[in-house]
Amino acid sequence: MTHYTQLVEKIQQLNDLQKAGAVLSWDRETNMPRAGAAVRTQQMTTLARLSHQMFTNDEMGELIERAAEEVASAEYDSTPASLLRLVQRQYAEARCLPEDFVRRRSEVTGAAHEAWLHARHEDDFAHFQPHLEAVMELVQEAAELYGYEDEKYDALLDKFERGMKTADVRATFNAVKKATVPLIHAINERLGAVDDSCLHQTFPIAQQQAMAPYMATAVGYDLSRGHIGTVTHPFAIGFGKNDVRITTRWYENFLNAALFGTLHEAGHGLYEQNTHDEFARTPLARGTSSGIHESQSRMMENLVGRSRGFWQRHYGHLQSLFPQALGGVGVEQFYRAINKVQPSYIRVEADELTYNMHIILRFELEQALLNGELPVADLPAAWRDKMQALLGVVPPSNSEGCLQDVHWSSMLFGYFPTYALGNLYAALFMETAVAQNPAIAAELAEGETAALVAWLKENIHQHGSKYDAAELTQRVTGGGLTHEPFVRYVTAKFGEIYGV
Amino acid sequence: MTHYTQLVEKIQQLNDLQKAGAVLSWDRETNMPRAGAAVRTQQMTTLARLSHQMFTNDEMGELIERAAEEVASAEYDSTPASLLRLVQRQYAEARCLPEDFVRRRSEVTGAAHEAWLHARHEDDFAHFQPHLEAVMELVQEAAELYGYEDEKYDALLDKFERGMKTADVRATFNAVKKATVPLIHAINERLGAVDDSCLHQTFPIAQQQAMAPYMATAVGYDLSRGHIGTVTHPFAIGFGKNDVRITTRWYENFLNAALFGTLHEAGHGLYEQNTHDEFARTPLARGTSSGIHESQSRMMENLVGRSRGFWQRHYGHLQSLFPQALGGVGVEQFYRAINKVQPSYIRVEADELTYNMHIILRFELEQALLNGELPVADLPAAWRDKMQALLGVVPPSNSEGCLQDVHWSSMLFGYFPTYALGNLYAALFMETAVAQNPAIAAELAEGETAALVAWLKENIHQHGSKYDAAELTQRVTGGGLTHEPFVRYVTAKFGEIYGV
Repeated sequence: MTHYTQLVEKIQQLNDLQKAGAVLSWDRETNMPRAGAAVRTQQMTTLARLSHQMFTNDEMGELIERAAEEVASAEYDSTPASLLRLVQRQYAEARCLPEDFVRRRSEVTGAAHEAWLHARHEDDFAHFQPHLEAVMELVQEAAELYGYEDEKYDALLDKFERGMKTADVRATFNAVKKATVPLIHAINERLGAVDDSCLHQTFPIAQQQAMAPYMATAVGYDLSRGHIGTVTHPFAIGFGKNDVRITTRWYENFLNAALFGTLHEAGHGLYEQNTHDEFARTPLARGTSSGIHESQSRMMENLVGRSRGFWQRHYGHLQSLFPQALGGVGVEQFYRAINKVQPSYIRVEADELTYNMHIILRFELEQALLNGELPVADLPAAWRDKMQALLGVVPPSNSEGCLQDVHWSSMLFGYFPTYALGNLYAALFMETAVAQNPAIAAELAEGETAALVAWLKENIHQHGSKYDAAELTQRVTGGGLTHEPFVRYVTAKFGEIYGV
Repeated sequence: MTHYTQLVEKIQQLNDLQKAGAVLSWDRETNMPRAGAAVRTQQMTTLARLSHQMFTNDEMGELIERAAEEVASAEYDSTPASLLRLVQRQYAEARCLPEDFVRRRSEVTGAAHEAWLHARHEDDFAHFQPHLEAVMELVQEAAELYGYEDEKYDALLDKFERGMKTADVRATFNAVKKATVPLIHAINERLGAVDDSCLHQTFPIAQQQAMAPYMATAVGYDLSRGHIGTVTHPFAIGFGKNDVRITTRWYENFLNAALFGTLHEAGHGLYEQNTHDEFARTPLARGTSSGIHESQSRMMENLVGRSRGFWQRHYGHLQSLFPQALGGVGVEQFYRAINKVQPSYIRVEADELTYNMHIILRFELEQALLNGELPVADLPAAWRDKMQALLGVVPPSNSEGCLQDVHWSSMLFGYFPTYALGNLYAALFMETAVAQNPAIAAELAEGETAALVAWLKENIHQHGSKYDAAELTQRVTGGGLTHEPFVRYVTAKFGEIYGV
C-alpha cells in the first residue's frame, strides 16, 4: 500500500465522520424534537472533535508529506494531485488554530448566539454588544493566527473564497455600487410600475409541496438522488453525490419563499450531485468556494427562475396548482410581479437588484470593525447611515437593522461578500455559457435548462473543489471575475421592466 | 480526574458515536434516497469500526479495571457500580470476537442478505441454502468464541437475553405450547365466530396519520420528546431519552398495521424515554434485554391496545377519524375483530394467541440447526412439519415458510425467542402491577393508562440496563419468569370471545 492510498483511506474515513455530522445536522433541522437538542449538540461535538484530532495530528502531516512526494509528478489536473493540494491546504489551515482557541471560540459564539437571539427578539442591541465585542477579539486573533500578506480581512475572506483578495472585492463592489445605485434610485421613482399583490394570496401548502419537486426538477435537480425537507431556515446539504438534500419552507400567504427558495437550493444541490465520481468520499466532492456555490443557486433562482422564458414554459403548471390565486393572473403580470424591485430592510427578502447593496454594507462594516475604525457600540448608527446611502431607507429598529443576521454571532466574518460574488459569478458564467453554446439561450427562451445544466456540469460542477474560484473562472471564461456581465444583465432586465 | 470520570467521558463519547450511527440508520429508513445507500453503508461502517477500535483496545481495558477498583465499594444499585458491571461485560464480549471474524461475518451476512432477498422473491430456497450454510458455520464459531457452560445455544441467547439459559426457555415454551395448542385447536373449530372484515375497508392515509400520534400519546409516549416516521419495516430507536423515535407504515385497506404498529413501537419508545436522567449518554439508558424491551411493546399493543377498556374510551375518536368505515361498526364488534384468532403462515401477521407458536417453531429449528441435527437442506421440510404440528396449517411456499424472516440471513440466531419471552414478561408484569396497585386495573377498565405507565416507569423503565432481565424480574415480581400469567390471560380472554 502506497502512502497515497493510505492517505486516501484516512481522508475517506474523515469524510465519513464529517458527513455523519452533516446527517445529524440535517436531522436536527428537519425531524428532531426540540427536547433532543442538548444531546444532539454533544453527539455533533464528539464527531467534530474526533475528526479534528484525527486530521491535525503529526502522523497525518507526515503521511500527507510522503503522499505528496509520491504524486509529485502527477499532472496538475489529476485527482491525486488535486486531492493533495486541497488536503495540504486544509491541514495547514486546521493546524493554524490551537485547541485552546477552538475551545474559546466555541464558548464565546455559543453565548453570543443565545444573546443575539434574545437581542433581536427584544430589539436590544446593548444586550448583544459585549458579546459582539468578545467575538471581534476572537476574529482579530483568528486573522493573526491564519496570517495575511496585504490586509487583515484577507485572512477571513480566504476561508470562504480561497485566494480572493479584499482589494479586488472592494474594487468590484465599488463598480457594482456605481452602476446599481443610480438604477435603484431611478426605479425608486417608479415603484408603482410593478404590482406584486398576486404573490400575496392564499397558496395551499399541500399544493406548494407538490410544486417544489416539480420546480427543483425543472432546473435539473435529480430527486432520485435527493430529498426535499421542511425547515425554518432553508439550506442544501450533501452526504455524497447520490444523496444531496435540499430544504424549503411554506408560507400560506406568500408564494416566494417556497418557490424561489426551492429553485435556489436546487441550484446548490445540483452542483454537488454533478461532482465527478472519482471524488467520492473526499473533500473534492464539494463546491469549490462559497461564492461559486452561491453562483449556482442564484443562477437557478434568478437568471433562470425569474426569466420570462422559464415562466412561459412553466406558468401553466403553476396556475393548475393554484387556480384560485393565479387563474386570473397572466404570465406577463406574474413575470413582472416576481421581479419587483423594492428597497427594504431585510437582506433575505431583498430583490435581485437591491440584494447586493445589503452585502456591500456588511462588507464595509466588517472591515471597519476589524480595522478598529468602528467601535461595536457605534454599529447601529453606522448601519443606518449606510442603509440611507445605499438604499435610501432606514430601518426603524436594530432588529430590522444590524441584528437581523445570525452570522456575526457565529463569528462568520468574511462570509457575507460571497453572497454578492455569487450574483456576479452567475451573470459571468451565464454570459460565457451562452457565448460558447448559443443553443443554451435558445433553450432558455423556451424554459428548457438541459443544455445549460450540461454546460455547468462540464465546466463547473464535475470539478468540485479541484480548482479554486479564480482558477476555475480563468479556465471557464478565459479571464477573471468582473462586474460587467451582472451590470449588463440587471440594466437590461430592470430597464425594460421599469422603463428606465 | 479519577479513572472513573475518565471512563465515563470515554463511554459517553463512544455512546455519541453509536447514537450518531443510529441517526444515520433512522435517516436511511425514513428519508434517504435509495441511491444514497452505498455511501451511507460506508459512513455507518466507519462509525462502527471507529467505536469498536476505541472500545476494544488494551488501554480501555486498563481504564475499566482501574475505574472498577475505584468504585468497588459503591453500592450495587448505584449508577457507578451498575455502569461498571455493564461496561465490563460489554468489553469482555467485544474482545471475544477477533477482527478477522468480524470482517468475515460482515462479508458472509452481506452476501447472505442479498441472496435471501432474491430467494424469498423467487421462492428459491436452493439459492439461499449455501449462504445459510456459511452463516451456520459462523454461528458455530461465534458460539465457541463467546463460550458457554451448558448448551451451545446459551452463548447465542445470552447476547439478547443476558443470563437466560436455553433449558429454562425450553421448559417455559413447552408449558406455553401445552396450554396454547389445545386452545388454538378449539378455536380452529369456531373460526367463524369472529368477523374482522370491518378492519379491511378503506382508511384514508391522511386520517391514519392523524390517528398515530393520538394513539401513541394514549399509551404514554411523549411526542414532545419523539417523532413518528414512515418506513417499510417499523422499529423504534432512541438517540437519547429526549429523542426517541418510532416509525409506522400505512396500508389504505387495512387498519391494523398503522394502529397496532404504532401502539407497539410506542411501548418500546416509552421505555427509553423513561430511563433515569443519570444514565444520559451511557449504555445504561437502554432497555435491559430484547425480551424485556418486547414486553413493553407487547403490553401496549396487546394487553392495553387490544383490551375492551381501551376501546371503550378511544373508539369514539377512531370512529370520528373514519366515519365511513367505522360509523356503523359497534365497539364490541370492533373489539372482537381486533382479537380474531387465525392460524396463518406469516409471523408478523399472527394474532396474539398463535404468535408464540411461530416463535417456538423457530427456537426449536435454530437449536436443531446449531446442534447439527438438522442439515440446512432439510429446513423447508422440517418447517412444514412443525407448522402442521403447532398451528395445523402448512405454507404453500418457502417464501411463506422458512424464507419469510430476515433474521437468519443477518446471523441473528438466538433472537427469535425474545419475541415470545416478551409476551410472557408482559403478562407477568401486568398481573404484578395490578396486584400491587388495584387502581391500575380500575383505570385500564376505563381506558386510562397513567397509573400503569407510572408503575412501569418506577419498576422497569427508569432502571434501563442497570439490572439484567432475571434480576429485574426478581425485584419487580419477587420471582422468576413464568408462563402462567400469560396462559391465564389468553385462556380467559379468548375463552370469552370464542366461547371455548
